[in-house]
Amino acid sequence: MKMIYEGKAKKVFQGAKPEEVVVEYKNSLTAFNAQKKGEFEGKGLINREITSLLFRELQKSGIKTHWLKDLEDHQMLVKKLSIIPLEVVVRNTLAGSLAKKLGRDEGLPLSQPLVEFYLKDDALGDPFMSSEQIVVLGIADQKTLDELKASALIINQALLPIMEKAGLKLVDFKLEFGRDSKGEILLGDEISPDTCRLWDLKSSEKMDKDRFRRDLGGVDSAYKEVLKRLQGVL
Amino acid sequence: MKMIYEGKAKKVFQGAKPEEVVVEYKNSLTAFNAQKKGEFEGKGLINREITSLLFRELQKSGIKTHWLKDLEDHQMLVKKLSIIPLEVVVRNTLAGSLAKKLGRDEGLPLSQPLVEFYLKDDALGDPFMSSEQIVVLGIADQKTLDELKASALIINQALLPIMEKAGLKLVDFKLEFGRDSKGEILLGDEISPDTCRLWDLKSSEKMDKDRFRRDLGGVDSAYKEVLKRLQGVL
Repeated sequence: MKMIYEGKAKKVFQGAKPEEVVVEYKNSLTAFNAQKKGEFEGKGLINREITSLLFRELQKSGIKTHWLKDLEDHQMLVKKLSIIPLEVVVRNTLAGSLAKKLGRDEGLPLSQPLVEFYLKDDALGDPFMSSEQIVVLGIADQKTLDELKASALIINQALLPIMEKAGLKLVDFKLEFGRDSKGEILLGDEISPDTCRLWDLKSSEKMDKDRFRRDLGGVDSAYKEVLKRLQGVL
Repeated sequence: MKMIYEGKAKKVFQGAKPEEVVVEYKNSLTAFNAQKKGEFEGKGLINREITSLLFRELQKSGIKTHWLKDLEDHQMLVKKLSIIPLEVVVRNTLAGSLAKKLGRDEGLPLSQPLVEFYLKDDALGDPFMSSEQIVVLGIADQKTLDELKASALIINQALLPIMEKAGLKLVDFKLEFGRDSKGEILLGDEISPDTCRLWDLKSSEKMDKDRFRRDLGGVDSAYKEVLKRLQGVL
């Protein structure tokens, strides 16, 4: 297979059909724009499994994703998308960069889910952008942003009860979208402990990449536990 | 007079009437959240004069500002406002922090004026915030933001031809608004080379605080030239 892209946590290969690609989930973990690097055995497979479980569940609810089928090991067959260069973040609880920016403690429940856009650009450090900036600078038009925001909120409403059943609080998460050959917007990338903040509902223990970012230890067991719990409810 | 506030570039004293305050324009210049400091003789008076000229002109166009009358030296009598803790930035041309954030050269004309909000909080470094963040975090409601944005755009449309007549390109500027005792939103603070980017229309030479921020020299003569040109057209 011809590799067409290698990212921080995934490799992408051209599939047998021109409109399909194979995504291989790597065992590597990165944080702070890849300044911090790590890995653990089985991580790629776990994230492939979690993403696959959630994407199939979202598709049952009518949400269009790039997922087609799981392949061997840590690979997944997906529709080829032209990625929209925005990271779409949904927050239910204040945490991470937003808590830091506002000098507030993590954990404040937000009065309503908050959708944010960050420009996908490693060299620039994925800067936060308002809708107005994105439109005026021609990065995306208002119609696309409205569609991304609406989709992100629907996905949030679909994920919240799944995570709650799994004993997890969905604090925030990052989505990426792209257009297929027909120009339709589909959910791409992944949904996993790499891209979500998940706190244990009872203990508030972090069950996501913050364990790696903040050197909390037990990264692999947290990821495994998230998979086990989701397998138990989906 | 009792001083009720001292900021980086101004002192505020209680006026004779409870609903009025006296603003004294200082000779100090600060940049990068006051990490860089300077001053020049007469700077307070120049900024008082420029602000007063522009605020009176805006009032003639029906825009409500806090300006009541000029007092001795570098003082101004204004309506007491309860300041809304947002810096409202209007950009006509890409420059400054936005150009830096996007890794682009300064000088790109924007397809339409861009309004941005920054939280007024020195300790946090005045972070950039989207309308959604401001509303969800309860800093201001959507109605207030809509009013600020509409006012900022009207002020921009009023300032652009004035600056053009004075041979200046209005690249971007920062406004602050507050509510008077009746709850009405008025333009507060100042409009001066401290708060605007002004480029000479012909030479593109910077005629504003960037001369100080970037150590370009000739800070005082640029400020004096802006005042002289505005006096010539207003």
